[in-house]
Amino acid sequence: MSGSELWGWIAGAFVTCSLIPQLIRVFKLKSAKEISILFNTLLLIGVLMWLGYGIALELLPVILWNAIGAVLVATLLYAKLKYGR
Amino acid sequence: MSGSELWGWIAGAFVTCSLIPQLIRVFKLKSAKEISILFNTLLLIGVLMWLGYGIALELLPVILWNAIGAVLVATLLYAKLKYGR
Repeated sequence: MSGSELWGWIAGAFVTCSLIPQLIRVFKLKSAKEISILFNTLLLIGVLMWLGYGIALELLPVILWNAIGAVLVATLLYAKLKYGR
Repeated sequence: MSGSELWGWIAGAFVTCSLIPQLIRVFKLKSAKEISILFNTLLLIGVLMWLGYGIALELLPVILWNAIGAVLVATLLYAKLKYGR
């Protein structure tokens, strides 16, 4: 693995894993009033588009991080619909 | 521009621009209690790493979206520090 490839793997890990503490916070507070539903929706569309991009170009880190990201963003959207307003 | 390149530009636009309604929401509510500071911090590190990756490999969309993203995430972090708790 090249240095830039490793760097990309780590950068992707930071971006995708950042969603985990945000999810924990919303589920712990049982409140998602401040989470924008438009943020959630646009992010989900974008992540799914990156996933398609990764699959089309066979880029493993792009596939992996965006597949995990899609699950995390979908879960945040679920939390918003459950605890939002 | 190839089809996949265009697709990447659009996917990046969705992901980066998703932060705009989230920022608007937090500044409108003047409250960022539900925003996780760890989410903000990890995301900022990740975006800055992608920016460095884009600069090193001279990937224009990666540079552009992550430069804008870094400003937006830094603003969200400012909002969290101002309105959080």
